[in-house]
Amino acid sequence: MCELLGMNCNIPTDICFSFTGFQARGGATDVHRDGWGIAFFEGRGVRVFLDPQPSSESPVAELVRHYPIRSTNVVAHIRKATHGSVGLENTHPFMRELWGRYWIFAHNGRLDAYAPALDGGFLPVGQTDSELAFCHLLQTLRQRFPQGEPGRFTLCAALQEHAEEVGPHGPFNFMLSNGNCLFVHRSTELHYIVRQAPFAVAHLKDQDVAVDFNELTSPDDRVALIATLPLTDNETWTPLPLHTVTMFVDGERQPA
Amino acid sequence: MCELLGMNCNIPTDICFSFTGFQARGGATDVHRDGWGIAFFEGRGVRVFLDPQPSSESPVAELVRHYPIRSTNVVAHIRKATHGSVGLENTHPFMRELWGRYWIFAHNGRLDAYAPALDGGFLPVGQTDSELAFCHLLQTLRQRFPQGEPGRFTLCAALQEHAEEVGPHGPFNFMLSNGNCLFVHRSTELHYIVRQAPFAVAHLKDQDVAVDFNELTSPDDRVALIATLPLTDNETWTPLPLHTVTMFVDGERQPA
Repeated sequence: MCELLGMNCNIPTDICFSFTGFQARGGATDVHRDGWGIAFFEGRGVRVFLDPQPSSESPVAELVRHYPIRSTNVVAHIRKATHGSVGLENTHPFMRELWGRYWIFAHNGRLDAYAPALDGGFLPVGQTDSELAFCHLLQTLRQRFPQGEPGRFTLCAALQEHAEEVGPHGPFNFMLSNGNCLFVHRSTELHYIVRQAPFAVAHLKDQDVAVDFNELTSPDDRVALIATLPLTDNETWTPLPLHTVTMFVDGERQPA
Repeated sequence: MCELLGMNCNIPTDICFSFTGFQARGGATDVHRDGWGIAFFEGRGVRVFLDPQPSSESPVAELVRHYPIRSTNVVAHIRKATHGSVGLENTHPFMRELWGRYWIFAHNGRLDAYAPALDGGFLPVGQTDSELAFCHLLQTLRQRFPQGEPGRFTLCAALQEHAEEVGPHGPFNFMLSNGNCLFVHRSTELHYIVRQAPFAVAHLKDQDVAVDFNELTSPDDRVALIATLPLTDNETWTPLPLHTVTMFVDGERQPA
């Protein structure tokens, strides 16, 4: 299995601190050695850093850890290969364009006996069930909303319906963003926390590193972090509801 | 105007040396200060590094310069904005998926009175004429070959026809790769060189850096480099034929 990390904020924020702990799980403190990737939205644009090497040994991960890219929506993934060999084309997150926006997708789980009929609008490049699921998801959205992108609550409801259809094939924890909001779906494990004023000191579980967010933030900042497992050991992470797509906008969990 | 750099090789090769000279043109020795990007194919996968900062000041460019990513097909671009503001979504190269392969595109030129009708299969995310041209090009290919990717010579002929249709709108120098081969089109300036045994010492025009490729290569290596303007001052770069799509495979220019 893999691990997911997402961030959604009301102002562009860097993810250096959280990525430090997450990166350590890619081979150093955990078994996710089969590559990693991270996508940062900046406006409508997106930067995707992928590396089939373990994140704990990757020079690209070192860059990401030290170069504060400020973003309102981030999706990251570290991989333990199940379907598909280790290779760049099988490294999450995946990117496609739909309705003139980039969409970023990462998945944790394993889908069995899953062979959706694809119409050719989106086709997988690699061999993972995850990329196949992403293509299927985007095809479903395009077919359902041929006039273009619907409002985000409509979109969230469509994703919920889609997740329920795919669910019987196996664990389908995923993160999806178009740069405006972050959709996350929990099948097995997924936790979140919202950091906002009054800010406190947070201490990583996976490395002896602490950050005092009072020194780094302004009073109006609001940052939601979503991760397979809690990243810090002195904050309260909340499990997300099972089998549910949850939407985060401007650093806030939205009502269903 | 912008500058283009492409590499096509018979075995995975790093582009550190050539990128060093190319990077300097992004703000240090030249005026291309409005961002840069580079895409590396590794098998079917691709890594795209984008930065809206000038490449001569970019930490991401420093990473690319020092971390030898070995690739058989590379496309790089430094930008002087004409259409579209400076921003990540307007930074080349652009990526889309067609027929289950990633396609990478970068453009140097300016297309005027250019408003192709798009069917929604590929839509621009940013505001550049270049990304619009890429979407138009992929749509044309998908419509023309609905059964999937044709052979590369058929593809090259279709690209030639397409380039002739777009040509009247303005300079349409471009590079396009799917990881198998590299297609380049010259409207105004485009030069190439093939390095193969016996290898020699090459010296950059834009920085006082020389490399002895004898020390870095094996006798069977063959590397084609294609650039808007020659990158070295002690080798003979050949201008490509005007208004022609040229295909490079395994480090060799293919017969038309």
